[in-house]
Amino acid sequence: MTGFVSFVSAGPGDPELLTLRGIKRLQAADVILHDNLAQHAATAFAKPGAIILPVGKRARGASTPQTRINALLVDHALKHPKVVRLKSGDAGIFGRLEEEIAALDAHDIPFEIVPGVSAASAAAAAAGIPLTRRDIARRVQFVTGHDSAGGLSSGVDIAALADPNAISAVYMARATFAKLARAMISAGLPPTTPACLAESVSTEREALSFSTVGELGARLAGSQETLAGQTLILFGPLTPPPRNRSSDADR
Amino acid sequence: MTGFVSFVSAGPGDPELLTLRGIKRLQAADVILHDNLAQHAATAFAKPGAIILPVGKRARGASTPQTRINALLVDHALKHPKVVRLKSGDAGIFGRLEEEIAALDAHDIPFEIVPGVSAASAAAAAAGIPLTRRDIARRVQFVTGHDSAGGLSSGVDIAALADPNAISAVYMARATFAKLARAMISAGLPPTTPACLAESVSTEREALSFSTVGELGARLAGSQETLAGQTLILFGPLTPPPRNRSSDADR
Repeated sequence: MTGFVSFVSAGPGDPELLTLRGIKRLQAADVILHDNLAQHAATAFAKPGAIILPVGKRARGASTPQTRINALLVDHALKHPKVVRLKSGDAGIFGRLEEEIAALDAHDIPFEIVPGVSAASAAAAAAGIPLTRRDIARRVQFVTGHDSAGGLSSGVDIAALADPNAISAVYMARATFAKLARAMISAGLPPTTPACLAESVSTEREALSFSTVGELGARLAGSQETLAGQTLILFGPLTPPPRNRSSDADR
Repeated sequence: MTGFVSFVSAGPGDPELLTLRGIKRLQAADVILHDNLAQHAATAFAKPGAIILPVGKRARGASTPQTRINALLVDHALKHPKVVRLKSGDAGIFGRLEEEIAALDAHDIPFEIVPGVSAASAAAAAAGIPLTRRDIARRVQFVTGHDSAGGLSSGVDIAALADPNAISAVYMARATFAKLARAMISAGLPPTTPACLAESVSTEREALSFSTVGELGARLAGSQETLAGQTLILFGPLTPPPRNRSSDADR
């Protein structure tokens, strides 16, 4: 037999930020292979008897190699009718989705992608600000501070990031933002450009701090990625945090 | 009294692509002010007796001016406890959210933003492809073909869009993509760069076609925005459409 794989976007962490379709797929799944940050979402909606397997990658420490994740995914899809691969944030953004699709393709295993809430959208929403601004920030872009060699992407276009008319989100930003900030400032980005450090958005450990590119780069010099949560940095012509924003805790 | 406003992201159109939190806010709302493309989502979850008002903007034809939307939002939030402003896609991306927040702020009306599925994520998921690729597409960016003057954004950074190592999504792309394609090709982007035209994603009228930047630019010359659905163009080093992708119709 050949099963069916649903790549489900878990969103930033809070199970309430899954889509209804994602929840339906989790409820029907025989097997759920989930990223570390998506564990709560996996267990919140799994049916009794479902196999739930963490296959998370981590910045440091114990992690599952991508080739092992690919092999596990194929193995389960050849044994069970409905497999969910639950990926943090939006499944199509910085999640090595292509490699998992290629593994399925090699075995003629059908799949679908259920889109979801990206970490960047979740961070901006938590901060109470938009990711684009009419006439001021007409372009929004996402990059990762962590490339396949573990450092700042060598192929990243610094001029595109230093554009004062774009808002940028840097995923896994902690370890490399000091270097990126220096490069962007050298390329002409004012060090006073607003920045927002967003950690563990939508979880109990959520922390947001508004700052500037220069100050945040200096503050994060020597930092390493954390194991526990996701760090994302927004910068560019951000609106100031609105004073009438309510956090979930107020609701 | 002062009510509470939830900016809820409706996703691309299918009510199943709302988040659970978004659905809860719709179910509790006394008033729902919705974009045109979010009508189905609004009516799918509204409680009996809720006031449901379309406040959509359109590329051409009858539309609600932004100042009128702002005034309606404030007016309802001063009269009803729970108001939902239901916006297409992710509320923070190309939705003039800043102006609506500023209107609330002027009246000390509290709000929250419920993030959701962006049109770009939904289009890529429907096509069965990721928005980023390890070592090949380390940056993903969203721009709009429609600026406040109704044409291609004059401030848009063509070099950033012509980067062969980035995947780009152009919102409201139909009327201006021919011009954008010419500008990017002049800036060095190969006309053979893969492109995907995605229309009315997640609705009954969903249509996806894979092409190239050069071919699609030529095909769309003289086009105008459509009233009925959203047109989004993805381009860059896209993966080819996988042969084992299942559409929802197959499920």
